[in-house]
Amino acid sequence: MIKFYHNPQSRAVMTHCLLEELKVPYESIIVEYGDGSMRTPEFLELNPMGKIPVIQDGEVVVTESTAIFIYLADKYKTHRDLAPGIHDKNRGEYLRWLVFASTCIDPAMAQANLKFEGKRQQLGWGSPELVFDTVTKRLESADPYLFGSQLTAADILLGMSMAWATQFGLAKKTETIDKYLSHLQKLDSWNINS
Amino acid sequence: MIKFYHNPQSRAVMTHCLLEELKVPYESIIVEYGDGSMRTPEFLELNPMGKIPVIQDGEVVVTESTAIFIYLADKYKTHRDLAPGIHDKNRGEYLRWLVFASTCIDPAMAQANLKFEGKRQQLGWGSPELVFDTVTKRLESADPYLFGSQLTAADILLGMSMAWATQFGLAKKTETIDKYLSHLQKLDSWNINS
Repeated sequence: MIKFYHNPQSRAVMTHCLLEELKVPYESIIVEYGDGSMRTPEFLELNPMGKIPVIQDGEVVVTESTAIFIYLADKYKTHRDLAPGIHDKNRGEYLRWLVFASTCIDPAMAQANLKFEGKRQQLGWGSPELVFDTVTKRLESADPYLFGSQLTAADILLGMSMAWATQFGLAKKTETIDKYLSHLQKLDSWNINS
Repeated sequence: MIKFYHNPQSRAVMTHCLLEELKVPYESIIVEYGDGSMRTPEFLELNPMGKIPVIQDGEVVVTESTAIFIYLADKYKTHRDLAPGIHDKNRGEYLRWLVFASTCIDPAMAQANLKFEGKRQQLGWGSPELVFDTVTKRLESADPYLFGSQLTAADILLGMSMAWATQFGLAKKTETIDKYLSHLQKLDSWNINS
């Protein structure tokens, strides 16, 4: 059974939602902040970065949310189909948004929060404004999900990232984003840690 | 044929190296900096972020280096096998390092360069020191690549990211990193833009 190391007060909730939607059996292991649980030799063996989420699937250990999402949705596609296959015409864009969530939205949130400065070419994500405008533009054609009526793992990661960004006032909650999130919020798994 | 939008003076060289190693036919389209080529309506249609690399594979458009790497190495695995398959025991770690390169090494380089401050919990990558120590620790067991004698797309992205980071003095060129890079530098494709 998959072991899922997480904390309900963290962005590991994104992976929690995915595991629920995939309907794969998993064991939930809560790793606390502040009591050294993320710095034990055993935990650092799983993730030397000392952070969650981590999944352990037999002998396979996966860290980094985007990697976990791609891994789980491909491997457990027969449980529930949340990933366009390798030769599907949506595969490229599916991967693009899964990676975009971590490489652009995450650091854009850090920048909006910490307010550090950098030129567009020095920052892979450009600027928070560019990142959130790019997401909004794409979501204008969501119907209701990125790939029409078919929910994918990319919707969960992108949607939860935008829910986080808007909730903390780091991105504007435009009408387009609000509409997209309103569909995702109907998933039973969405509020699993609330 | 795949269309590859890039510039030799950019990190798109990583994708260039991968395309050469995969031995798939592709058309090289150089997009210049500073002359507005990355801001034309046609280019922004491909990538609203206005940056390279972009690949166009028939009707499929992929942006974000990590997404491009995962997409190409899976899809063209029959040309040359540079990706552990979905059920391979190395799949999880393969994805982990491909994602790590973009979500941790890239922003760690930006932080080392711009010298902004942030607490570990505010920055998904922790700190440049944590990121580069984590890479070094893993590379101690590279032999010579991450998964032994089998080169994968993850070696190209991780290796080129570390070559970049050490070349610009943003990460220390430890003996371990130097040894790993010395094997990669023997690839004909490594210096394709030099």
